[in-house]
Amino acid sequence: MTTTLDTLRDRLRAFALERDWGQFHSPKNLACALSVEAAELLEHFQWMTEDQSRAPDEASRAGIAHEAADVLLYLIQLADQLGIDLLEAADRKIALNAAKYPVASARGNSRRPDR
Amino acid sequence: MTTTLDTLRDRLRAFALERDWGQFHSPKNLACALSVEAAELLEHFQWMTEDQSRAPDEASRAGIAHEAADVLLYLIQLADQLGIDLLEAADRKIALNAAKYPVASARGNSRRPDR
Amino acid sequence: MTTTLDTLRDRLRAFALERDWGQFHSPKNLACALSVEAAELLEHFQWMTEDQSRAPDEASRAGIAHEAADVLLYLIQLADQLGIDLLEAADRKIALNAAKYPVASARGNSRRPDR
Amino acid sequence: MTTTLDTLRDRLRAFALERDWGQFHSPKNLACALSVEAAELLEHFQWMTEDQSRAPDEASRAGIAHEAADVLLYLIQLADQLGIDLLEAADRKIALNAAKYPVASARGNSRRPDR
Repeated sequence: MTTTLDTLRDRLRAFALERDWGQFHSPKNLACALSVEAAELLEHFQWMTEDQSRAPDEASRAGIAHEAADVLLYLIQLADQLGIDLLEAADRKIALNAAKYPVASARGNSRRPDR
Repeated sequence: MTTTLDTLRDRLRAFALERDWGQFHSPKNLACALSVEAAELLEHFQWMTEDQSRAPDEASRAGIAHEAADVLLYLIQLADQLGIDLLEAADRKIALNAAKYPVASARGNSRRPDR
Repeated sequence: MTTTLDTLRDRLRAFALERDWGQFHSPKNLACALSVEAAELLEHFQWMTEDQSRAPDEASRAGIAHEAADVLLYLIQLADQLGIDLLEAADRKIALNAAKYPVASARGNSRRPDR
Repeated sequence: MTTTLDTLRDRLRAFALERDWGQFHSPKNLACALSVEAAELLEHFQWMTEDQSRAPDEASRAGIAHEAADVLLYLIQLADQLGIDLLEAADRKIALNAAKYPVASARGNSRRPDR
């Protein structure tokens, strides 16, 4: 079967149900776990130069893939708890970003987080 | 066209190329940005109780969907830079978690991060 | 000798100098490390209820103290690299917060992060 | 009066008491807030090169000082809630790090987070 965000969501639902973990999976807790996994991903890069980060050794790359998977899995579960369609939200966000950073002015400028 | 992680990746590639942002998108920088977005997601929940987090008001929910999209978009770009297949990595991680947290012992126990 | 932020700073300077770690201690890298340690601190609490977090067992409490120390040590080093006086900055921030959250309106309301 | 971690702690206690914010300040919530502030600090550096991060412009530097203060203020409050002596914990951590990274082997090598 092809893996998609939907098939992952379904497997994660079954996984949590079998273990009775729904009680721990409040959106707040899942957001904590997501932040923790994002930091574990960052940890791989913290003492690397940017150049080194473009070509990590095989062990680092495998660790990075694991942490990236953890981020995705918590993100899917968080979105599922709140009825958020991740792909649709991402589609909308790209459209918003295109309006926020027009090619003419954004070209070659790292954007400022002008929140 | 149906949105998938692959179509999002392609749009993000075009987006960065048009703006000449490849120079800023080292894996290290993308991992920083991912962590920052994950924290912005968490910020919505930081003073909520767990119960409140299960039913955020509409404004919070919209903000959460935006931040969740940002997390996904940086995650896709980071994986793209390093040639990581996110769905495959997530598949493998679920299998690893199933072995690490057998139903019998994990049932009803929040797992300890025994790294 | 009494320990203060200044004596810790001096010890951290000597520590990094002896190991020739100044090359790794750019403010950017220290900010990454600080975020990673803050997440390791959060990890202790991620599956706890708020009530549980008020009374962690002795092992958790010891782990939390270690991570809190790591956060402080990276914060001191980051401030040192940029010539920031942490205590003065904290003094100013409390004054700003007092103006931002007047007692009358803030009483009993969790503040919104209206950045 | 000289500012120290203890005087900041006392002011933060009074600040929270006046606003009846103790109810929101569980260690779990404070750890969330600490992580969020650490990420806001990191955000200033995310698109900078390491070299740029060593010499931020005055506006960035002021913003960084604010976020660093926020990190310190939440760290003090978290430690206060759990009865952790931050300076003592930091002292102990430096001693542990000295044992973990002996000068001879650590010299010039960025340490690996071998947790």
